[in-house]
Amino acid sequence: MAQKPSIPKGTRDFSPVEMTRRNYIFDTVKQVFQRYGFQPIETPAMENLSTLMGKYGEEGDKLLFKILNSGDFVSKVDDAELHKRNSISLTNKISEKGLRYDLTVPFARYVVQHRNDISFPFKRYQIQPVWRADRPQKGRYREFYQCDVDIIGSNSLLNELELVQIINDVFGKLNINTTVKINNRKILAGIAETIGEADRIIDITVAIDKLEKIGLEKVNQELLDKGIAGEAVQKLQPILQLSGTNAEKLDQIEKVVASSEVGTKGVEEMRTLFAYISEFELQTTVELDLTLARGLNYYTGAIFEVKANDVQIGSICGGGRYDDLTGIFGMPDVSGVGISFGADRIYDVMTQLEIFPDEAIASTKVLFINFGESEERFCLPILAKLRAAGVNAEIYPEAAKMKKQMTWADRKQVAYVALVGAQEMEQGKINLKDMKSGNQEMLTPDELIKVLSKLI
Amino acid sequence: MAQKPSIPKGTRDFSPVEMTRRNYIFDTVKQVFQRYGFQPIETPAMENLSTLMGKYGEEGDKLLFKILNSGDFVSKVDDAELHKRNSISLTNKISEKGLRYDLTVPFARYVVQHRNDISFPFKRYQIQPVWRADRPQKGRYREFYQCDVDIIGSNSLLNELELVQIINDVFGKLNINTTVKINNRKILAGIAETIGEADRIIDITVAIDKLEKIGLEKVNQELLDKGIAGEAVQKLQPILQLSGTNAEKLDQIEKVVASSEVGTKGVEEMRTLFAYISEFELQTTVELDLTLARGLNYYTGAIFEVKANDVQIGSICGGGRYDDLTGIFGMPDVSGVGISFGADRIYDVMTQLEIFPDEAIASTKVLFINFGESEERFCLPILAKLRAAGVNAEIYPEAAKMKKQMTWADRKQVAYVALVGAQEMEQGKINLKDMKSGNQEMLTPDELIKVLSKLI
Repeated sequence: MAQKPSIPKGTRDFSPVEMTRRNYIFDTVKQVFQRYGFQPIETPAMENLSTLMGKYGEEGDKLLFKILNSGDFVSKVDDAELHKRNSISLTNKISEKGLRYDLTVPFARYVVQHRNDISFPFKRYQIQPVWRADRPQKGRYREFYQCDVDIIGSNSLLNELELVQIINDVFGKLNINTTVKINNRKILAGIAETIGEADRIIDITVAIDKLEKIGLEKVNQELLDKGIAGEAVQKLQPILQLSGTNAEKLDQIEKVVASSEVGTKGVEEMRTLFAYISEFELQTTVELDLTLARGLNYYTGAIFEVKANDVQIGSICGGGRYDDLTGIFGMPDVSGVGISFGADRIYDVMTQLEIFPDEAIASTKVLFINFGESEERFCLPILAKLRAAGVNAEIYPEAAKMKKQMTWADRKQVAYVALVGAQEMEQGKINLKDMKSGNQEMLTPDELIKVLSKLI
Repeated sequence: MAQKPSIPKGTRDFSPVEMTRRNYIFDTVKQVFQRYGFQPIETPAMENLSTLMGKYGEEGDKLLFKILNSGDFVSKVDDAELHKRNSISLTNKISEKGLRYDLTVPFARYVVQHRNDISFPFKRYQIQPVWRADRPQKGRYREFYQCDVDIIGSNSLLNELELVQIINDVFGKLNINTTVKINNRKILAGIAETIGEADRIIDITVAIDKLEKIGLEKVNQELLDKGIAGEAVQKLQPILQLSGTNAEKLDQIEKVVASSEVGTKGVEEMRTLFAYISEFELQTTVELDLTLARGLNYYTGAIFEVKANDVQIGSICGGGRYDDLTGIFGMPDVSGVGISFGADRIYDVMTQLEIFPDEAIASTKVLFINFGESEERFCLPILAKLRAAGVNAEIYPEAAKMKKQMTWADRKQVAYVALVGAQEMEQGKINLKDMKSGNQEMLTPDELIKVLSKLI
């Protein structure tokens, strides 16, 4: 036999069981997005390299999967280029397209390209795979889905509220207890400005982040070691010792950043957002968290991160506000805010907690065991009626051994089997067996349809 | 401003309107597949080139999109290879992966790779994009979705019946009048064998296919011109003059191929299938059609093709039975039967006939016009209740000019707008405007929820 075929490392096949669960997650997310007026778009897997290159840093450029030009690509490369043996410069000559690396850059490209057809504010979601030539490792794949929802062309903080509500609704429906951590880049900028270290936002945030792990004293030492002035570290102390409710924390921060315009603006934004949020009874906990350092180089306002409360795992959703999504394509001043759901991690959380509901596990509702031609003739019209009534139903395609058919039903996690032999046909009835409990009952075709369609 | 960005030729962006319509088609198809017990799988966009090459003929190999190896790929190519300047042989050195060209080969690979985890018969569907470096032209894209449903590991003709039922149900739900044409390769083989030209199946089928266009006399001439013996052409006459019902046609064919074992088997298969089909009241017309020459080099039994009755367009669905899907990967004797729905053509048919239902056109059910802060505070809790009741609802994110908000609602094809100003707030009511009719009514929050949730 030939060698067993395989797939490229870092990629995955999804079996029916995995697909059903993944679709349960995607369908839930989509439904909530639509509930809030977001609409789907899709962009091609391949983008021009001119669209992608330079958008993810030098490292990102290397992680793009590049597509070899079709046809006799070598004929367009001159000898000098070939002799250079430089893979990077040769790539420019033999490849014009790459696979998308995320959904953000294609979205920005989409908005600029179709700007005349879009009514702003534009509320879109996009659920598609992305590809990265990362070194594959546990939980990191070369092909994975991103699940992004953004609103662009509006500065209103109502949008931030709606994203928090969306997070709440999605994880509520999925039955995952979560905490939404919210930060604001303007506050961080205000703090850095206030203590006279405007350029050191990231260092400061990273240091604050270590507070719980290493304690106040060591954090202060680290700040000094990084060259932050002693006076600045001193000014930072109220921030490092924040406590109380979100509103109380904002009061304390407000005092610290009072002299900074951007910092005050940040506090004001957070006050507005938390006031909005307080009007709703959310299942998720919402926390102001100044240690959130996610995407500090592109977010300009709110920053979000969602943690699952009951599982040790990285963030399962995150995002923030950005002021210039489309500037890279020559369309400045388009502000937006968006979040991205991590489907793979959500899947892992739900698997670990065993909280996939039956509908995300069961497949067919009922399988008719095939006992032969005349039984088949009896069953087929009933089967058609069941399907017309919206019941997922099937018949084993041949009169195989009973044991084989039952094993098949079992492995497929069919909820019920319908047994129709000579005796049942005589009575005009169906013997319906519950595969979980093993209970059986004799039903007329009409009763069968009624029982099973009630279970949809 | 920078140059307007674009996407690679032959690829497409899908706007919210297009996505909603496409999803309507995909969701319908998926629902029917599941109704018949088929389960989804997904395979990676990238396959090893060893999996793909040689499976689609020499031309197909050229049409594969190949992915450049990551890193310093040139360092692995020796000077001699570079100097050869042969794109095909160089490709082998610098590329190991390609984008899938169809869903059939990845499915075969999947089955062989996961054979120990699969319970046969295996009923799977798969809806994913495929990529072909074809010359782009009207209606032909370099990235497009395929939508395949197959059952493998079963020879039963019940499977053929179910595929016909699936075709009937899908196009019934989509409201497209169709004709399913069915042929059988065994019958064609039997005819060719009978007239002593066993190797000429395709020539004979192609000639028969021209019957309507050029008439009997010219078809006969063409057969002679192609070197088919006069005696053979004589024997073929009953086949060329087939008439009557499917059953009558089968009677006539049966006589012609009586001496051919394979031909007789084919007639028997078709009799069984048509007997099955006759038990059901199908909306679609089912016709035996010996001129169907689709996939004659790989189908081994039934061949299907579906035409839209009311639109001039190629087939919108097709497929057939194959006896050796997985042989290419060293797992012989796995018989299967499957069909593939052409999403792009179905989309075109539905657009042309203007039969997309409202649910595939409308987006948000209701938009709250934003008149300012206090109105917003009045509206937000109602909005939350509407969403909790399953209504897709949104509020314009800022208090922009009324006209701007109404235009936005209009362009987004929102069904209703909710107008809440000072007067409405005083009364505790919402002014609901039907965007189609222009009718307005004043409703309490509870009435609003009742009215709108009834419309889901």
